[in-house]
Amino acid sequence: MSKCTVTFLPHQRSIAVSEGESIIRAALQAGVHINASCGGEGVCGKCRILLEEGSVSGGLSERLSQEDYDKGYRLACLAKVAQDVTVRIPVESAMDKSVMNLQVTPRRTATIQHTDFDSLKEEGLFIPPVEKIFVSLTPPDALNNMPDVTRLVEHLKLEFNEHRLELTLPVIRKLPGILRENNWQVTVTLIRGVKDDGKNVILNVQAGDRTAHNHAIALDIGTTTIYAQLVDLATGECLAEAGDFNGQISYGEDVITRIMYAEKPGGLTKLHEVVLGTINSVLKKIIARSKVDREDISTITFAGNTTMTQLFLQIDPRNIRRSPYVPAATLYPPFSARSVGIDLNEHAIALTYPQISSFVGGDIVAGVMGSGMYRNEELTLFLDIGTNAELVVGNKDWLACTACSAGPAFEGGGIEFGMRAAKGAIEDFSLDPLTYEPMIFTIGDVRPKGICGSGLITMVAVMFEMGVINNRGKFNRDLGTNRIRSTNDIWEYVIVWKDETQIERDIVLTEPDLDNLIRAKGAIYSGCMTLLAEVGLTMDMVERIILAGGFGSYIDLEKAMTIGLLPEIDPDRVTFIGNGSMMGARMSSLTNRIRKDVVAVTRQMTNFELSETPSYMDNYIAAMFLPHTEIEKFPRLKARMEARARK
Amino acid sequence: MSKCTVTFLPHQRSIAVSEGESIIRAALQAGVHINASCGGEGVCGKCRILLEEGSVSGGLSERLSQEDYDKGYRLACLAKVAQDVTVRIPVESAMDKSVMNLQVTPRRTATIQHTDFDSLKEEGLFIPPVEKIFVSLTPPDALNNMPDVTRLVEHLKLEFNEHRLELTLPVIRKLPGILRENNWQVTVTLIRGVKDDGKNVILNVQAGDRTAHNHAIALDIGTTTIYAQLVDLATGECLAEAGDFNGQISYGEDVITRIMYAEKPGGLTKLHEVVLGTINSVLKKIIARSKVDREDISTITFAGNTTMTQLFLQIDPRNIRRSPYVPAATLYPPFSARSVGIDLNEHAIALTYPQISSFVGGDIVAGVMGSGMYRNEELTLFLDIGTNAELVVGNKDWLACTACSAGPAFEGGGIEFGMRAAKGAIEDFSLDPLTYEPMIFTIGDVRPKGICGSGLITMVAVMFEMGVINNRGKFNRDLGTNRIRSTNDIWEYVIVWKDETQIERDIVLTEPDLDNLIRAKGAIYSGCMTLLAEVGLTMDMVERIILAGGFGSYIDLEKAMTIGLLPEIDPDRVTFIGNGSMMGARMSSLTNRIRKDVVAVTRQMTNFELSETPSYMDNYIAAMFLPHTEIEKFPRLKARMEARARK
Repeated sequence: MSKCTVTFLPHQRSIAVSEGESIIRAALQAGVHINASCGGEGVCGKCRILLEEGSVSGGLSERLSQEDYDKGYRLACLAKVAQDVTVRIPVESAMDKSVMNLQVTPRRTATIQHTDFDSLKEEGLFIPPVEKIFVSLTPPDALNNMPDVTRLVEHLKLEFNEHRLELTLPVIRKLPGILRENNWQVTVTLIRGVKDDGKNVILNVQAGDRTAHNHAIALDIGTTTIYAQLVDLATGECLAEAGDFNGQISYGEDVITRIMYAEKPGGLTKLHEVVLGTINSVLKKIIARSKVDREDISTITFAGNTTMTQLFLQIDPRNIRRSPYVPAATLYPPFSARSVGIDLNEHAIALTYPQISSFVGGDIVAGVMGSGMYRNEELTLFLDIGTNAELVVGNKDWLACTACSAGPAFEGGGIEFGMRAAKGAIEDFSLDPLTYEPMIFTIGDVRPKGICGSGLITMVAVMFEMGVINNRGKFNRDLGTNRIRSTNDIWEYVIVWKDETQIERDIVLTEPDLDNLIRAKGAIYSGCMTLLAEVGLTMDMVERIILAGGFGSYIDLEKAMTIGLLPEIDPDRVTFIGNGSMMGARMSSLTNRIRKDVVAVTRQMTNFELSETPSYMDNYIAAMFLPHTEIEKFPRLKARMEARARK
Repeated sequence: MSKCTVTFLPHQRSIAVSEGESIIRAALQAGVHINASCGGEGVCGKCRILLEEGSVSGGLSERLSQEDYDKGYRLACLAKVAQDVTVRIPVESAMDKSVMNLQVTPRRTATIQHTDFDSLKEEGLFIPPVEKIFVSLTPPDALNNMPDVTRLVEHLKLEFNEHRLELTLPVIRKLPGILRENNWQVTVTLIRGVKDDGKNVILNVQAGDRTAHNHAIALDIGTTTIYAQLVDLATGECLAEAGDFNGQISYGEDVITRIMYAEKPGGLTKLHEVVLGTINSVLKKIIARSKVDREDISTITFAGNTTMTQLFLQIDPRNIRRSPYVPAATLYPPFSARSVGIDLNEHAIALTYPQISSFVGGDIVAGVMGSGMYRNEELTLFLDIGTNAELVVGNKDWLACTACSAGPAFEGGGIEFGMRAAKGAIEDFSLDPLTYEPMIFTIGDVRPKGICGSGLITMVAVMFEMGVINNRGKFNRDLGTNRIRSTNDIWEYVIVWKDETQIERDIVLTEPDLDNLIRAKGAIYSGCMTLLAEVGLTMDMVERIILAGGFGSYIDLEKAMTIGLLPEIDPDRVTFIGNGSMMGARMSSLTNRIRKDVVAVTRQMTNFELSETPSYMDNYIAAMFLPHTEIEKFPRLKARMEARARK
């Protein structure tokens, strides 16, 4: 799509955006504030702009008279960029241009890190755990009548340098017939051992040359959603992917309620069956979409948190939620996928991502493996933020991890108008530095219904930096705006007046909301601090941050640093890997190196239980400020605050 | 039982026998001939003896008048030894005492070699593949909350020096509950790898200390019978054993007809199910008898010939009976006993004795392993004689094997009055050197019905040595006895006249019978010769013979050497191991050394297909004589023949 330049006056700021982008989103990107409340439906009529040069498409609304339209006024939320254009933001008073430009920080999300398949190839690591080898055997005769299995194994030794081979009983059963029916030309499917001196098991044997049809499934068993990808091991490509809600949701939203359900009679079996149902229906979809023969799928690698893993494997999870929080196992052996009910062919093997502890599970280990963090020199902080946040710090030489309960604030819980990131959720925010009037953006550009996690972070960061909220999370009551008010003795800021919402109530941000957000980010930040302190390091030594989980992609990094959720770091050094669990499962399907390494990583990773780490409480209390009790830890923010104070 | 001495006159021969033995069997052992035809029922009345000193119990019959009884006559077959006694054999003419003492050779069967459990203990090899270890773990606390599996594995490492441990998924499922319900005191069942650097898998975990309850099953899957033993791995004892006919018999008597049945639609599944039915019913018996808890049985080690093994494992056996006679596999991986339908608990592992070729199967390998032949210096000939004879020669440095079709002569097939070794079968035989009247012994001491294999061997050996049969298997027609006659142009010897049989027909030995026997023994002997010749050795270099199979225990060794079935060797150097398959399966259950060694033995053993070995036919033709075309190969027999000729 071609790019057009939008120039905003009187700010004199330009930004290149894609054709078709709305003027208001261009403004947000340019760091230009325009009052706007209705999420882009054109009903509030506040986001008027004046065309100075060039034109836009759309931007007309009932809230704009024909006269104004003729003068060149448009609504910024409805006006789409069609060519280079210069627009003016009408201001009601002569403003100090420098104040006008005190827009907080431009929006900046993390760079997305994709599965690093090319470097895998370059490093010569594209050796999947499962390989197919086509063999053409010499038929037996009177002078050479060794058993069929021996004939095959000897051939693989001599011609392919394959050793320590073992065949499964089903393959032995299949062998005599398939060899003779196919002129002694067959394809064997080999699963390699984890250790170099381990067994290599022949899982399957197929007629003729099937080496071009070698597939694996990567599966993420999330508490909320199940995702699966069908991977072509010949090319490394993902042929199909699909996801669905984990059917266990009906039995509890979070892991703790699921565990409680599992403790009831029959509960564990039920939850196992339900998640299996979801998994099998997702697999059915990707197999149908990719038109792959089930017989060509030989492994399914899955990752999930400790509770999801135990529920799926039908292992009583009751000790996960009880002090001292003991999971059943770290490493699981490979086992037949069918033996746990996965609807794949008889030969398919299930490979389980190992767990670290009750609260740092296979999903996190998969992220650490998939992101390559464990192979890098840099001191990296890996963060998966949700109701529970899992933290891993370290590099190729050492790794330490912990988990903390952030509470549901980032998913909208405990926030009066909080909601999940869905249509109508306020996801971005800006504030007029003079009038304290907001500009809001919603998911889907519809009238707002509530505030999602990333919106909340941006909102609080902007308000804090503009002095609307102090470092203890209290509103400045002396700003002379009617948006800050007290209702039933609770102070709040009105983000959207009720007639501009979908819900016919004022959408507000309250001091208790702020308190909950500060607790959530404080828990995570102090978790990181404690973890680093336990290994003798400090937050300012972190060289790289990896964000995992759905949440991470939407976070405005500078805003997250402003509220003290993340340590201050060059945003270029923050990457987002999305679903780390899926990424790791897929990477493991593609290279046996990960399977080899993960055993060492699991052994090497030190787990800390924060509840058992005395310094955690002190760190937590110190983090119960915006951004922190010591603003020196956030030098860029400190400089901006000081600059603003000088105006 | 106390021993009594029986002295026979006029031979002046004495023998010590157990109290209660019949006089006639004492005579056989002493090498004294007494005419006798009715098998010990007292109806022929021929076996009269005269008490000279001491007395016997019984010995009265309708065939003996009161007057004769009062004179001291008794029937030797009914008279039981009760004290030291001297008896006289009444002779109708004055005989040359030296002729009278020309009894062939005393009966001599092979020494029975039992499972060599004591030497196993002495050598420190009593380390079963499956061990139980009782552990008492430190419960987790806040500072030590490693996963349950890790806790167990670390304990086994530190306290028991156990490494490379892996738990199965079912054990992981069981672990959290059982540890907590039993105060962290449990018993783990460990199956060791075959290789020293292999995995040691924890198969089971049980409450409290169950180390005294560690059991294994050894199973012999024979074509005719299934035997099983329940072995106590704590003591090495056999707690119970049972056997039954292989249910497959209804689908064919021998392996070839079974294979043919398996080739029909559904045939393989049927035969698998049928043998499984027999196996499970035999297991049920031994488990009930021994009162062992199924949960304490962790392995079942089985041995069978190649066809039996493939049928049991549901592997199409069609190529076994077709040139070039290719079996499916040599080595089989360990697999879950339940996965093939064996009715043991979930954790039990089935271990399969490896095969060498289509006709040298796991039963023979088991015998080689169980007998210890593969560990000895001596050049040993291992022989399992049946319709098919399997031969192994070698020592600890090398082994070679082959199989030959002996035909069913030794099981009564192709012999006019041949029968299996059952009640009424003539099992032993002696001949009056002057009158050529026979003394016969039947199984069960009842009137004869036919001749079993061991009886046949003895009969032919005695007749040959006494000149009744020449070295080409033809009767001497000039001996002046009405027992040698021609019926329908076929020459025969009447063993028992019809009124002394159960079948109301004369029981005869015919020249075609002799021909069949010579073919059978010739096939085996020439098989041995060919095998030895292929490795550059000759029969006279054989230092030790091991006989396996039901047949071997009854064979009179000297007689078997006389007819040239076995090479001439000191009978002390012949041992009988009985059911070698069972012995090997049991030994494997007791020592992991066998499991380790058998892989090397299997690889090391060279298999020869006689049909592909050109010298076999020449050797076979040379062996088509009694004992052989070169009597020099049998120097002791030659000396006896020459001595007899001088009389």
